Amino acid sequence: MTDYRRLRVALLGAGAVGSQVAALLRKHGDELADRAGAALDLVGIAVRNPDAPRDVELPRELFTTDAEELIVGADIVIELIGGIEPARSNILLALGSGADVVTANKALLATHGPEIFDAADQVGASVYYEAAAAGAIPIIRPLRDSLAGDRVQRIMGIVNGTTNYILDRMDREGSDFAEVLADAQALGYAEADPTADVEGYDAAQKAAILASLAFHTAVPLDAVHREGITRIDTQMMDAARHAGYVIKLLAVCERLATDDGDAISVRVYPALVPREHPLANVHGANNAVFVQAEAAGNLMFYGAGAGGVQTASAVLGDVVSAARRHIAGGVGVGESTRANLPVLPVGRVTTRYQITLEVSDEPGVLATVAGILSEGRVSIATVEQTVVTAANGEPGTARLVIGTHRALEQDLSETVDRLAASGVVGRVVSVLRVEGD
Amino acid sequence: MTDYRRLRVALLGAGAVGSQVAALLRKHGDELADRAGAALDLVGIAVRNPDAPRDVELPRELFTTDAEELIVGADIVIELIGGIEPARSNILLALGSGADVVTANKALLATHGPEIFDAADQVGASVYYEAAAAGAIPIIRPLRDSLAGDRVQRIMGIVNGTTNYILDRMDREGSDFAEVLADAQALGYAEADPTADVEGYDAAQKAAILASLAFHTAVPLDAVHREGITRIDTQMMDAARHAGYVIKLLAVCERLATDDGDAISVRVYPALVPREHPLANVHGANNAVFVQAEAAGNLMFYGAGAGGVQTASAVLGDVVSAARRHIAGGVGVGESTRANLPVLPVGRVTTRYQITLEVSDEPGVLATVAGILSEGRVSIATVEQTVVTAANGEPGTARLVIGTHRALEQDLSETVDRLAASGVVGRVVSVLRVEGD
Repeated sequence: MTDYRRLRVALLGAGAVGSQVAALLRKHGDELADRAGAALDLVGIAVRNPDAPRDVELPRELFTTDAEELIVGADIVIELIGGIEPARSNILLALGSGADVVTANKALLATHGPEIFDAADQVGASVYYEAAAAGAIPIIRPLRDSLAGDRVQRIMGIVNGTTNYILDRMDREGSDFAEVLADAQALGYAEADPTADVEGYDAAQKAAILASLAFHTAVPLDAVHREGITRIDTQMMDAARHAGYVIKLLAVCERLATDDGDAISVRVYPALVPREHPLANVHGANNAVFVQAEAAGNLMFYGAGAGGVQTASAVLGDVVSAARRHIAGGVGVGESTRANLPVLPVGRVTTRYQITLEVSDEPGVLATVAGILSEGRVSIATVEQTVVTAANGEPGTARLVIGTHRALEQDLSETVDRLAASGVVGRVVSVLRVEGD
Repeated sequence: MTDYRRLRVALLGAGAVGSQVAALLRKHGDELADRAGAALDLVGIAVRNPDAPRDVELPRELFTTDAEELIVGADIVIELIGGIEPARSNILLALGSGADVVTANKALLATHGPEIFDAADQVGASVYYEAAAAGAIPIIRPLRDSLAGDRVQRIMGIVNGTTNYILDRMDREGSDFAEVLADAQALGYAEADPTADVEGYDAAQKAAILASLAFHTAVPLDAVHREGITRIDTQMMDAARHAGYVIKLLAVCERLATDDGDAISVRVYPALVPREHPLANVHGANNAVFVQAEAAGNLMFYGAGAGGVQTASAVLGDVVSAARRHIAGGVGVGESTRANLPVLPVGRVTTRYQITLEVSDEPGVLATVAGILSEGRVSIATVEQTVVTAANGEPGTARLVIGTHRALEQDLSETVDRLAASGVVGRVVSVLRVEGD
């Protein structure tokens, strides 16, 4: 084997991803050295409890509880603890000691990204985070490097595997949300407390990271509009199927032209996606990121969104990049946030909508509904009315499914309130955005 | 605007891609400077005829016929001439003068890659070629960087837009090859001389580039097995559809375990792909690269495979990368060819096959055919026999569609020869590999 310069690699955390990273670093050491141009010596693994059971067997002597000592002597620090602290302090300590950092910590980057990237800039180090956005799917480098000469217009991502698994099964089997969620929990696709996934928090963190990169703008997490999938029921699924759509939880990052110049919108919500759209064919727990760029046109990146060994692949790719930079010398590629576009609230976004209403089946109701929509600057594209006959044979309620042209979210939302209060609408069954048509 | 260091960018060639690169460099100059951390000054465009008509309007004073003078003064040289010479000499001159090189020249890289990468290594410069493999789709960086910590097992790529356009229309419309080709030529999807596309030469060059990167091995173009799509007819398309497949021209790059250690196979041919495989849903002139890696699992990269402005996006991404490297200092990432795995001939590959035979409809024929297959170590998975009644009402020929288990290509090919010579087989209608099942 070539006599390579040796780099000291410190690993923080040995959970599902961390233990796989350690195992692969040891198993493929020679191969990785050839690719990195440096031998990658795993010098230690900082954990809270060195004696806890691990997914893979690792030598006991690698474990330490003293993260700080480990960090200070390292060339590359891999942070796989997750959460804000001590991950944040550990990363800042690593950068301060001249190490490059590899992390999969989306929560930290979405909330403290600018602080971390600034700290890296000051010492000319780099922070690599391919595993933070969509698991094993290479999306960070394409956005940061491959598309650096282009202008991204829009990203639509299925970036949370748990919710895609749930929605896909609801769509394919006609099962209801609670039933599939329970099953997903039993199979390990969803956590005991599924809030972070099903309420869209995880997707919102990834959306903030993707939008920051794509638009060269620091997007704070609280600027991301977020809705989860808990209100999606079998009736909405059936109606979507009937109309040629499938419901997906999407992270949408969009460049918008305003009177004051370009701005962006970043939002996470369940949306109707046309069946023929490539994102509609992303099944199970897979992720996919669909990118529309001015010159490149439509691109899609598809793969496993989570999983210990899959995510470990993305982490190790970053470790090799960090090692190459160490060997090549020079400063790292800093984050580009010079565009700093304003992030608009969701009210300023325009999309198409599908509104489902229960109305009384009386003459003039459709005219009243149409009038309220028109007053609210919401233009109707399609209407489908189904009469639901009451048990006694008398006409009962009717169901009205209205597809709109593109409308401003704020107009739409005020209009829906007026419809609900109009007296002719018994119930607003659902309001869903249409994306990707 | 920030006072950036200025880098001198020289462009060689102003065809469909080159003129778009020049236009975008000028249009988005400020934005690109922010991303690159350097102002990118387009100092000249070397062409044979400065007065030739261009796709976009560019200042006459940028044009020169003296490529060498232009190259010698440049920090970054973009080679978009295509072909071997003078592209090769120009690139070597650029590297020798300390410039980084961006090229979309697949023919050159597939034939003279090692010479060019060696020249870059010697001076610590870099050669960027994202646009050489699958147009606008970011596939080079994912393979070189994102998957550098993983082990690629297999790549299946639809890497030629023209042939995918033709096969997709044949599949969807039932039209025949000649008809769709003529239409594709009229629409500009195929060239007047379509040989490079329809005979698989273009795909073979891209396969060599992808395999070299994925397996860290210099794969010479003549080690790539190549078959085109001209023999694909409507009958084969119908039969494929009937059996749940679609025919796609695939570039397959595969790692194989042999008794002497790992080896690779690189091949381009039309193959049967199951309808539910993500590659089956790649329509029109789009490209997609499906990657199977040991840890990352299945990934797919999808987008426009060609087109001037789409390819220009990939070129400009490379220009920004080259500029960042110039600013950051240090040496570039060299090609990693240390694995240097042997490339096996196609005879050593195993795949599943679908063999369609015309046989006489007599007792004992199936037994004879099955016997020949068995002797040839080709195991039958499925058989479907259809009797084709002759015009006079007498039994005539039968059509036999045989799906095999995985068999060695050399065994299969010898067996097919024996079938053809057996006396019971009237005609070998088609032999197609099955990939992606």
